[in-house]
Amino acid sequence: MEYTRESDRVVVRLDPQDEVIESLRSLRNELQIDGGFMFGIGAVDRAILGHYDVDEQSYSEETFTGQFEVTSFSGNIGPDKIHAHIELGTESYDTLGGHCSEARVSGTFEIVVFTGETTLTHELDSRTGLDVFALDN
Amino acid sequence: MEYTRESDRVVVRLDPQDEVIESLRSLRNELQIDGGFMFGIGAVDRAILGHYDVDEQSYSEETFTGQFEVTSFSGNIGPDKIHAHIELGTESYDTLGGHCSEARVSGTFEIVVFTGETTLTHELDSRTGLDVFALDN
Amino acid sequence: MEYTRESDRVVVRLDPQDEVIESLRSLRNELQIDGGFMFGIGAVDRAILGHYDVDEQSYSEETFTGQFEVTSFSGNIGPDKIHAHIELGTESYDTLGGHCSEARVSGTFEIVVFTGETTLTHELDSRTGLDVFALDN
Repeated sequence: MEYTRESDRVVVRLDPQDEVIESLRSLRNELQIDGGFMFGIGAVDRAILGHYDVDEQSYSEETFTGQFEVTSFSGNIGPDKIHAHIELGTESYDTLGGHCSEARVSGTFEIVVFTGETTLTHELDSRTGLDVFALDN
Repeated sequence: MEYTRESDRVVVRLDPQDEVIESLRSLRNELQIDGGFMFGIGAVDRAILGHYDVDEQSYSEETFTGQFEVTSFSGNIGPDKIHAHIELGTESYDTLGGHCSEARVSGTFEIVVFTGETTLTHELDSRTGLDVFALDN
Repeated sequence: MEYTRESDRVVVRLDPQDEVIESLRSLRNELQIDGGFMFGIGAVDRAILGHYDVDEQSYSEETFTGQFEVTSFSGNIGPDKIHAHIELGTESYDTLGGHCSEARVSGTFEIVVFTGETTLTHELDSRTGLDVFALDN
């Protein structure tokens, strides 16, 4: 991982074998990002996608391996949680998508993180079983 | 819906049962956003997707229900129009996508709106039958 | 193409028949953008999607024609390279995605480019055969 910090954003390059979420966690800790929104593109060869069933409050995951273009990656960075969703394009240009539990870089991965003034801490929403932005505190 | 306004962006949390486009319309009216670009992720249990056939100048819509991760949501906010496209991931990690006419939050929905200096009013492009950015006025 | 330049972003409207990547290249040259991150939505009737096999270091492309909603378009603009990925929604709300080699606007295309302080020049990563951000120079 290499990055440059600007006044209100961080430009990030991830390299082969880097795990995307783990790398963002390191970045967050290193730069003390507590309210970032990000998006990026790249290529990965393994991804753990997640899907949450709100009715059942049950979470499932599946690991996909292959040569994937990341056609969409976006989400946010709080002090207590990094939340990202991802979309993968296969060699036949089909797509797969879901919550991004993890993704391993194969080619490169280019992310911009817009840092901001709001600290994105989370609180449990008991209706859904999810940790959500605590904006009303 | 909860939100915090920063100097040049708004952080938004939508809650179960909130309609995404309708909520953004309320936000727009409340904060007088006239030139916003946004993206976000979340989970919805109903979405009305749209597809426009430019040749026929005809618009079709279809309603999807289920437990969907929103793998991509992006667009813009003008005083006279909110325009967003959406991508949904199913429980089998397949994806669906199109124009987002409406989407109902099931889990949570996290959006950042970058406000700006350009008022995004629209004018009819008679070639396509679409309301497009009136940037040249 | 019409656009308005703000202090730290550019709002762009592309019109029927405009090629997206070629238009962004003109915009980049005209405004001397050397570190932009962008996203957008729109409709296209032809797109050349690419897929890179990192193991084989081989790149394949395929041209798709039809009436597509662009459900996701994102990437970045450097002085020596424009890099974008795209996701297309068909009339049946299925999706296709990959590297965006080119895309021709049918309806409209609305892009925001966030300009910044980091010049996104590229250098060859011999491990992958890809030109990647030269952030460590």
